[in-house]
Amino acid sequence: MIIDCHGHYTTAPTAHNSWRESQLTAFLAGRPVPDYPAISDDEIRESIEQNQLRLIRERGADMTIFSPRASAMAHHEGDELVSGQWARACNNLIARVVGLFPDTFIGVCQLPQSPGAPLKSSVAELERCVLELGFVGCNLNPDPSGGKWTSPPLTDRYWYPIFEKMAELDVPAMVHVSSSCNPNFHATGAHYINADTTAFMQLIQGDLFADFPGLRLVIPRGGGAVPYHWGRYRGLADMLKKPPLSEHVMKNVFFDTCVYHQPGIDLLFQVIDVGNILFGSEMVGAVRGIDPETGHYFDDTKRYIDAVHLTDADRARVYSGNARHAYPRLDTALRARGR
Amino acid sequence: MIIDCHGHYTTAPTAHNSWRESQLTAFLAGRPVPDYPAISDDEIRESIEQNQLRLIRERGADMTIFSPRASAMAHHEGDELVSGQWARACNNLIARVVGLFPDTFIGVCQLPQSPGAPLKSSVAELERCVLELGFVGCNLNPDPSGGKWTSPPLTDRYWYPIFEKMAELDVPAMVHVSSSCNPNFHATGAHYINADTTAFMQLIQGDLFADFPGLRLVIPRGGGAVPYHWGRYRGLADMLKKPPLSEHVMKNVFFDTCVYHQPGIDLLFQVIDVGNILFGSEMVGAVRGIDPETGHYFDDTKRYIDAVHLTDADRARVYSGNARHAYPRLDTALRARGR
Repeated sequence: MIIDCHGHYTTAPTAHNSWRESQLTAFLAGRPVPDYPAISDDEIRESIEQNQLRLIRERGADMTIFSPRASAMAHHEGDELVSGQWARACNNLIARVVGLFPDTFIGVCQLPQSPGAPLKSSVAELERCVLELGFVGCNLNPDPSGGKWTSPPLTDRYWYPIFEKMAELDVPAMVHVSSSCNPNFHATGAHYINADTTAFMQLIQGDLFADFPGLRLVIPRGGGAVPYHWGRYRGLADMLKKPPLSEHVMKNVFFDTCVYHQPGIDLLFQVIDVGNILFGSEMVGAVRGIDPETGHYFDDTKRYIDAVHLTDADRARVYSGNARHAYPRLDTALRARGR
Repeated sequence: MIIDCHGHYTTAPTAHNSWRESQLTAFLAGRPVPDYPAISDDEIRESIEQNQLRLIRERGADMTIFSPRASAMAHHEGDELVSGQWARACNNLIARVVGLFPDTFIGVCQLPQSPGAPLKSSVAELERCVLELGFVGCNLNPDPSGGKWTSPPLTDRYWYPIFEKMAELDVPAMVHVSSSCNPNFHATGAHYINADTTAFMQLIQGDLFADFPGLRLVIPRGGGAVPYHWGRYRGLADMLKKPPLSEHVMKNVFFDTCVYHQPGIDLLFQVIDVGNILFGSEMVGAVRGIDPETGHYFDDTKRYIDAVHLTDADRARVYSGNARHAYPRLDTALRARGR
């Protein structure tokens, strides 16, 4: 079985995205928010069948852990209430996708974060999504300011309410920023990768997993810059008098395989323990073209993994075992279906 | 000949660093700046001989392109005048090191940048350092705010005065941030690597080298996250309708080899053309320990390069030819000495 841990609903029906625009316009104008539009099952089916589902089948995967479009979370827009309405609408739409394609998709939620706001509403939305919608995790934005980086580091107690709820519900978070309102940072070319790198370094500096020994975080895009600079991070941990990374961080952190070329994937598998790697593609996402050097889609990451020399057991861990371990509620759901 | 393109005077005499502290204290108190202290040649000799010079010899290099301590530039402290005094003091000290060890060190200057300030004083200091002190380049901080990222991207016209002066003097810049005053970003574990990645993506988005076809920029630490995500950057350039990276960026950009483990260096050489790679170590710098996996210093990057399979001609380019090309004034100085 092959589970892609990293997919967003980047192809949501136009009416959904238009409602977001009118929501923000209404907020800025001080007008009431318009009603969320009617979206038919057929519209949802079509948006999935022609895109994610087609590609999942073509590329030979079975299932995707599916969440709202990350770049559209835009926690820096509006306020806490606006983020709450938007997160709820996005998560409900994911639940409809999962309801229509229960064998192929399982949900991960967007949180209603807002710069400076407490995490109380995020805790409530996580609980709703897990307990009522059957979701198995959340996306946690370490920078809800969208590239201004005004929140405290992830190891700060500011974040503890969401970690406490994650621990209680036994669900992981993917650490995932959204779009950037800072012109220095291209969203998918700088902000995303920087955030992945930054989060990992925050975890080295802090001691979060002493307080939350069972907490699991997925750092996407192959851990940002981390595996390429693995010697730097091992050396910095040593200089900061921290235990080796294998003990200090890597019992609780996973990297996905959203690294869009063979040499990068090879490096990932060379330096990171196979138990910490989850198959992911983030398709249909940031990089949608075909690599002229290979003739295949950049984000068809399964091809790269298939080309890595792995034992069958290790390959099975990367393709599904590690995901079932990191997302226990996914494992429970699959077992209930005999998978 | 082996030229390390990336060394900072991290071991400057205490009196120099103490003066900086008293300068900032005086600024905050509104008092006049104290006089710069007397520092003897012997103090400078000792600080170099026991550290950089010893390690250069032990590791088998010949020369270091040497600049003030990057983390201490701290352009976000004080104001433009304070940055001007500090840059001048730091650059003069580098000139003294070069004067004492002319066969081993050649200077690169710190610029008196300050958040929001125009680049006029940086242009003047660059000119002074090149024409009066014999320096061969500068360190350009893309984020003088120290982790708040309040300046425009490097491709913005804000930066053009310094690029114009660099073009006129035919000197390159290393793109190098300083310390971080944003608690999200560990300086050497996040801010540095993020800035390297960010600068590269800005260069993809913009078209800086159309305006400055001869401009040369060195992006340190092996290009941040870029080689690990080389497929992503090739794919993003394509999505942004830019020419291939080899034409659009890599005629003007070099990566150094400050990547502190063998797999990272191997990847760098696998994906980046050897003509774009400059030997660098950034020692004595961010990571000062010994790698327990190898028994050697993390930042002894020459060992990793020696282990890469390269032709003699390519090895010579990485060790000196590319640096002499990127820093023409270094080449001129060496030729004048018959080297």
